[in-house]
Amino acid sequence: MSANKSRPSGRACDELRKVAFKRHYTHYAEGSVLSCFGHTRVLCTASVDTTVPAFLKGKKRGWLNAEYSLLPRATSKRNTREVLLGRQSGRSQEIQRLIGRSLRACLDLNALGERTITIDCDVLQADGSTRTAAICGAYVALYDAISHLIKKKTIANNPIHGVVAAVSVGIYQGLQVVDLDYQEDSHAETDMNLVVNDAGHFIEIQGTAEGHAFQRAELDALLTLGQNSAQKIIALQRASLQL
Amino acid sequence: MSANKSRPSGRACDELRKVAFKRHYTHYAEGSVLSCFGHTRVLCTASVDTTVPAFLKGKKRGWLNAEYSLLPRATSKRNTREVLLGRQSGRSQEIQRLIGRSLRACLDLNALGERTITIDCDVLQADGSTRTAAICGAYVALYDAISHLIKKKTIANNPIHGVVAAVSVGIYQGLQVVDLDYQEDSHAETDMNLVVNDAGHFIEIQGTAEGHAFQRAELDALLTLGQNSAQKIIALQRASLQL
Amino acid sequence: MSANKSRPSGRACDELRKVAFKRHYTHYAEGSVLSCFGHTRVLCTASVDTTVPAFLKGKKRGWLNAEYSLLPRATSKRNTREVLLGRQSGRSQEIQRLIGRSLRACLDLNALGERTITIDCDVLQADGSTRTAAICGAYVALYDAISHLIKKKTIANNPIHGVVAAVSVGIYQGLQVVDLDYQEDSHAETDMNLVVNDAGHFIEIQGTAEGHAFQRAELDALLTLGQNSAQKIIALQRASLQL
Amino acid sequence: MSANKSRPSGRACDELRKVAFKRHYTHYAEGSVLSCFGHTRVLCTASVDTTVPAFLKGKKRGWLNAEYSLLPRATSKRNTREVLLGRQSGRSQEIQRLIGRSLRACLDLNALGERTITIDCDVLQADGSTRTAAICGAYVALYDAISHLIKKKTIANNPIHGVVAAVSVGIYQGLQVVDLDYQEDSHAETDMNLVVNDAGHFIEIQGTAEGHAFQRAELDALLTLGQNSAQKIIALQRASLQL
Amino acid sequence: MSANKSRPSGRACDELRKVAFKRHYTHYAEGSVLSCFGHTRVLCTASVDTTVPAFLKGKKRGWLNAEYSLLPRATSKRNTREVLLGRQSGRSQEIQRLIGRSLRACLDLNALGERTITIDCDVLQADGSTRTAAICGAYVALYDAISHLIKKKTIANNPIHGVVAAVSVGIYQGLQVVDLDYQEDSHAETDMNLVVNDAGHFIEIQGTAEGHAFQRAELDALLTLGQNSAQKIIALQRASLQL
Amino acid sequence: MSANKSRPSGRACDELRKVAFKRHYTHYAEGSVLSCFGHTRVLCTASVDTTVPAFLKGKKRGWLNAEYSLLPRATSKRNTREVLLGRQSGRSQEIQRLIGRSLRACLDLNALGERTITIDCDVLQADGSTRTAAICGAYVALYDAISHLIKKKTIANNPIHGVVAAVSVGIYQGLQVVDLDYQEDSHAETDMNLVVNDAGHFIEIQGTAEGHAFQRAELDALLTLGQNSAQKIIALQRASLQL
Repeated sequence: MSANKSRPSGRACDELRKVAFKRHYTHYAEGSVLSCFGHTRVLCTASVDTTVPAFLKGKKRGWLNAEYSLLPRATSKRNTREVLLGRQSGRSQEIQRLIGRSLRACLDLNALGERTITIDCDVLQADGSTRTAAICGAYVALYDAISHLIKKKTIANNPIHGVVAAVSVGIYQGLQVVDLDYQEDSHAETDMNLVVNDAGHFIEIQGTAEGHAFQRAELDALLTLGQNSAQKIIALQRASLQL
Repeated sequence: MSANKSRPSGRACDELRKVAFKRHYTHYAEGSVLSCFGHTRVLCTASVDTTVPAFLKGKKRGWLNAEYSLLPRATSKRNTREVLLGRQSGRSQEIQRLIGRSLRACLDLNALGERTITIDCDVLQADGSTRTAAICGAYVALYDAISHLIKKKTIANNPIHGVVAAVSVGIYQGLQVVDLDYQEDSHAETDMNLVVNDAGHFIEIQGTAEGHAFQRAELDALLTLGQNSAQKIIALQRASLQL
Repeated sequence: MSANKSRPSGRACDELRKVAFKRHYTHYAEGSVLSCFGHTRVLCTASVDTTVPAFLKGKKRGWLNAEYSLLPRATSKRNTREVLLGRQSGRSQEIQRLIGRSLRACLDLNALGERTITIDCDVLQADGSTRTAAICGAYVALYDAISHLIKKKTIANNPIHGVVAAVSVGIYQGLQVVDLDYQEDSHAETDMNLVVNDAGHFIEIQGTAEGHAFQRAELDALLTLGQNSAQKIIALQRASLQL
Repeated sequence: MSANKSRPSGRACDELRKVAFKRHYTHYAEGSVLSCFGHTRVLCTASVDTTVPAFLKGKKRGWLNAEYSLLPRATSKRNTREVLLGRQSGRSQEIQRLIGRSLRACLDLNALGERTITIDCDVLQADGSTRTAAICGAYVALYDAISHLIKKKTIANNPIHGVVAAVSVGIYQGLQVVDLDYQEDSHAETDMNLVVNDAGHFIEIQGTAEGHAFQRAELDALLTLGQNSAQKIIALQRASLQL
Repeated sequence: MSANKSRPSGRACDELRKVAFKRHYTHYAEGSVLSCFGHTRVLCTASVDTTVPAFLKGKKRGWLNAEYSLLPRATSKRNTREVLLGRQSGRSQEIQRLIGRSLRACLDLNALGERTITIDCDVLQADGSTRTAAICGAYVALYDAISHLIKKKTIANNPIHGVVAAVSVGIYQGLQVVDLDYQEDSHAETDMNLVVNDAGHFIEIQGTAEGHAFQRAELDALLTLGQNSAQKIIALQRASLQL
Repeated sequence: MSANKSRPSGRACDELRKVAFKRHYTHYAEGSVLSCFGHTRVLCTASVDTTVPAFLKGKKRGWLNAEYSLLPRATSKRNTREVLLGRQSGRSQEIQRLIGRSLRACLDLNALGERTITIDCDVLQADGSTRTAAICGAYVALYDAISHLIKKKTIANNPIHGVVAAVSVGIYQGLQVVDLDYQEDSHAETDMNLVVNDAGHFIEIQGTAEGHAFQRAELDALLTLGQNSAQKIIALQRASLQL
């Protein structure tokens, strides 16, 4: 696969941006990771609480919940703070529901026991693909929080099974590209987010035609690109956690 | 594909429920369709307004917006009315954003001119797959509203290109099935919604692993099942509109 | 009383529109009735719940509560969905409080026992007199819900005493008319809603001078017209319930 | 009608409490009246503003709007401040809509010209019949505000026609009584509020059966009692304004 | 102390307006005081409740909470009612937090026992320095409410220690003045509110430079002026309570 | 300056924590500074907008507004996100109003011209004295944003006059200490925040007795400690900006 001058960043079509997971970024949370994909930076914390939502009371099962927010000036143009509108945007809710589902997919809620883990993903800087960066960083933060519980002997067995990563793929100026930055994202003809585990299986797939509808062959190629890229990210998550 | 006793309804895996689009269901809206997929019934209206959102003022382009809501007793257990919580649920917002994107995909907003079409999808009875039923019915209501504008000579050319349908597919007890009813939906291992046009291309794809992660081969089969089923629905939409 | 050409519909002054109560209109609610007065159509459901409001906890009494809403395109011009404003309008609250008081007037809350019945009145199409249509249909839905409880032997004795109906009367172009449609309602000089039982006694009376103040003699005539018309509706409610 | 020992206050059935309208109670508002009916005290202010609601822009007509609120400790038991619940109660909205309609009934909005009068009724102490006390006091405050505009030559002709008063009547322990205090109000079998003008005609009538449904003969007697009592109040309003 | 013609009111720099604390102003609250500083009038009530906030449950300690609000036409120009905006303004919250802290500073919450006192400060007329008038009047209302509890033998020992007063000081046209009225307040270069006890010690100090920053020497002089003036107010509070 | 073992951190009474202003911390905002006081870290951005609030339209003056928020896990125990409560807390509003007033005190709004600068202070980690750290960092961010406007020749003259710093002082275990960390802050007897300019004059002073009321002599000493410490911070702000 050769480099491609058509991407604004000069990256090859299947080339990720520089990825880093800065663990212990803040010190109160049980897990705290700054997830960096190029200029995109998301602070992901995992907080452990000994209560559970009402629908799980007394069932000896745990829960994982996620919240997502953009700082007002994470973006090129300042956004109004959601609290001043009195409610979260549909976009924020959609993303945090996705983060929650993705991480619950690798977590044995029975083994977790009656406690809740809250994942907070706060975007400090947004240069495209914030939701996939959030999921990847949140996995690392979750792992750290669980390790903390195991070290304190609060739980005996690790309730995490496998590794979860997310990646964006899309069609930009006719090219099938991975890990879209803002410039690509805002002009993509097709935009797809994949959540994949270390077995290469799918946890979530969300694709939208922004311009024309996409064909089955295009879809098949994007799925393959995403599956392969997700494995690269999983290797970086493992390295970061020294697994 | 043969009939399968494992589905609660006794349907074959690739068999849709009884589908009907009852046009002119209420008489004030420019388009008004009761979309029925088995017991699922969604009232879809298309309302034409001569204003546009602020970001389109003076651009000689139109807009299409969608809203989705469940009546409190559309479901087996009564839901609290969203207005009493002061805000829409994340689920409602997610669905109405999907409906809006799906229909905008077949609408030339320049040809529509400076006006807004609002699609209201109110679920009178929910027996699974309400969002796909909403999209299918909303297409028919949109078509009627546009025909009304053309008949009144408000617009000269039809801004709708092609037909849009949506369908749910999923894995239920190991079977790949289409048009899931509530019983199937609530126990599905994988749940996927596809929005497809009459050329067989994809407008939207949203798949979630509810139980275990799904494999690429499973995904491929579900996509094929969905593509085929969508064409059956498109035939019914066309018949309903006498196209 | 002879036919009168002055009413837009050509009805006689004391003539109701075509009235129908379509029972079992949706199938999850314990009672579900489409109440039709001409073009006005209100979906009335009665839902039974085994909890009670905080002020009744442990008192072995039940409660009945009502909620009212217009679908956005129930009317000639689309209304903004109340949830997007974050609160119910004063009009909606006023109407649902009226519906609740009217039905509690025929319900022995002690005999109901510690459970709550929620009446939902969702207007699918509004052509005047929606609140009176809602009360009439809600009575039928309530009756069906109670019959369901008795059949299941959840309660032993019928807590409903008598029949409750509501009707609008008013002065339109100098004429005293009943069951006002939208065209009459929006131009009425006086607008009055009466809730009456099968003994001919009053449960609620609400009259407003829209143009000039009304005289005692006019009021007396309207009360008589309303009392008589309510008995006609009660006969239709009974017929619908096969009482 | 003779005195009756059955009323908690020892008043005769047709006897009003001590009524006073203290004008110029606060000094910024164009009209400011403390309306006292026994222990019930409502501060009624009329404020003049040179804007009008959007639906009246450019129509050379004015508007009158009313708002009603209870101070938290106006009552025996403290009420939560509505702002902390984020919205007005249904009761407050219902009352303020009534106050607005009642005063608009005596105001020529064309003669008022393009300005808005806002009536604020804040209950300092509530001992029953606060809404009728509010309407009576608000009339006096409105009159003062209009006189102020005439004196300043802002408007040439008085847009007020006639006098508006409101009074509560009801059935308490079988007796037909007027101007109910809290003890009567909370145990009344029937509770009715009448808004009447100086010609003795009705502007609004709202009656509710709290216990058993009321008969036509009872209703007729209450209407007569209310009509007579309203004229007594109108005399007091006139005296207060030195008309 | 020499008179000064520069103040709009002609008061001397260290001269308070006419101060009055009208006790038992309304009759339901355990303490009810109209606090008058010139034209500024704040209705201060103290309400006793037998519940405590969640964080104090079972701790055998009490709590005191304050709420502050302006009636819409307390001011020269009418203010929108906060409930219609759905939330309290930052200013109202800031003031009520100050009132609460100030009064808790003289209240032994252990001696109060498991009950809550709610202070409501509703401004009927605002001519500057409403927050300091509120604190002074609220102290008197609190004292009355506590006396009521002692008289009823609900509590054995008086949990109030000392007297708390508040006063505004500021720099107006270069002069250091006390108890600013609205005209002074809106043009002050420096605006400071002091809460002081009868020992002359400080409970709260809040100073803001409105024009230029203020120097240490100016600050020192204002503090002395405030300390002295607070003692005058404390004498009036004591006289009002006949202590 | 002698070391003092009584402070949890072992700092001398007049010793600040390690202070750093990391400029250009994020890259979209015109000014972006991570303000660090020990473990306290506040991201302060200054965003320039070409609109102004309604009350300044057409007046050729600018405005500066501030917003403050804690990330949910900035603290030892996770806080609920304010947007989920639908409104900002009183504390957040109080702090952001303080930040806004403090920075407007050094900004010539006429020289700024018709544009708004929004200061966002988002606390990533909270170890006491977050509001003073926010003001200090926000000054640096504001300076960078203004420099950006001057460099782009959007404005000709620097509208900033002087330097503004803020510092906390208090009484902790009888000692007068500066720059309180969380452990000190939560146990302080007196807590005071001072905003001071480079001339040593006061812009804002807010002091609260948490335990017993504080005496004039204590207040005087705290003011001196704060004035001196503020000058140290101003030197660090200047060094950071290379002034």
